[in-house]
Amino acid sequence: MKARVYVSMKPTVLDPQGQTICSALNKLGHREIASVRQGKYFEIGVAEGTPHDSAVQVLDTIAKDVLSNPVIEDYRVEILE
Amino acid sequence: MKARVYVSMKPTVLDPQGQTICSALNKLGHREIASVRQGKYFEIGVAEGTPHDSAVQVLDTIAKDVLSNPVIEDYRVEILE
Repeated sequence: MKARVYVSMKPTVLDPQGQTICSALNKLGHREIASVRQGKYFEIGVAEGTPHDSAVQVLDTIAKDVLSNPVIEDYRVEILE
Repeated sequence: MKARVYVSMKPTVLDPQGQTICSALNKLGHREIASVRQGKYFEIGVAEGTPHDSAVQVLDTIAKDVLSNPVIEDYRVEILE
């Protein structure tokens, strides 16, 4: 089973890295770009034979406890197959 | 218009950061996790009034030329609205 976990800053948290990318893109001539926010993304392979429900639960636990900082970040888990 | 750009290592490129996360998760007791690969993820806002086709083209150019390194990375652009 494969899954993807997306971690991004909460909308209320400033993202200076994204702002820098945005102003760099504008300076390069891409004036259509109004905002950029950067996040992290993990492709996770779950061992064969793991029951679907327990895999979903483990992925949610990992995303919440290890891969993201729940004080300033939101996460989203996407199960692929 | 909003879009998301996902940048990940090509499958043939080693990802030591992902391997470290994977072994850390296994040591924490999450033995179901077989592999982890880390990537980057950008949420991009395009200025109102930009024609859809030109926005798609600009996003593809930016993803290819600025946000990713095409020698070792793959990218994927997702248009949201």
